[in-house]
Amino acid sequence: MRVKQLLFLGTSVMVSCLFWTGRYASAEPQGRIVRIAELEIDPTQIESYKAALKEEIETSIRVEPGVLTLYAVSVKNQPAQIRIFETYADEAAYRAHLETPHFKKYKTGTQEMVKSLKLVETEPIMLGTKAR
Amino acid sequence: MRVKQLLFLGTSVMVSCLFWTGRYASAEPQGRIVRIAELEIDPTQIESYKAALKEEIETSIRVEPGVLTLYAVSVKNQPAQIRIFETYADEAAYRAHLETPHFKKYKTGTQEMVKSLKLVETEPIMLGTKAR
Repeated sequence: MRVKQLLFLGTSVMVSCLFWTGRYASAEPQGRIVRIAELEIDPTQIESYKAALKEEIETSIRVEPGVLTLYAVSVKNQPAQIRIFETYADEAAYRAHLETPHFKKYKTGTQEMVKSLKLVETEPIMLGTKAR
Repeated sequence: MRVKQLLFLGTSVMVSCLFWTGRYASAEPQGRIVRIAELEIDPTQIESYKAALKEEIETSIRVEPGVLTLYAVSVKNQPAQIRIFETYADEAAYRAHLETPHFKKYKTGTQEMVKSLKLVETEPIMLGTKAR
């Protein structure tokens, strides 16, 4: 009997895990905040900027439940042109993010490196992503 | 003894699942292809375009192992301005995507709807994403 129970438990856990990892794939967005930040960085400070940005992204994704993606890239052959694709669970998650110590540290620490910043607000159409 | 083995198996499965779902969070990119498509759509055909785009995204994410994200948004208050944040596992996955029937159907079906298309090639800096 205990063996059967354990088998059942094992199978349940396995099925739950598979279901859980798959359930957000290709999800239709619901209340998500998505925006694209377009930055131009002082060419002499690109490496320092990237280090600060990586630290901010790593911490935000790790400690903030409502920060879903912070995808940072530079335009090919234009390393000073940065694009960040930002997804937040909802407006509250976005507002909370702005008040975190790690975001404030990034913002203050990079203000002399950023020559321009444009925030492109968007409406999600479909946020297709692989369950990973 | 069998009970212990099953307990061990159950625990292993649970730990593996947790590890598996978490391992790509904030991953440093390795060989990934990331680009941003910027499109302008004929204003009279936006709804048809969005329907075709959603179908293409849903199919690509579901059937192509190497298509990791296709995040489609429109610029707020400019519904004809579309941005798609595309991530592929590697160059081969991207090339394979271009040859799929669903991509070709989307491409042919929307060619009269798309007024302009700009593909911004990028270099990933950090692709921070929540394990979901």
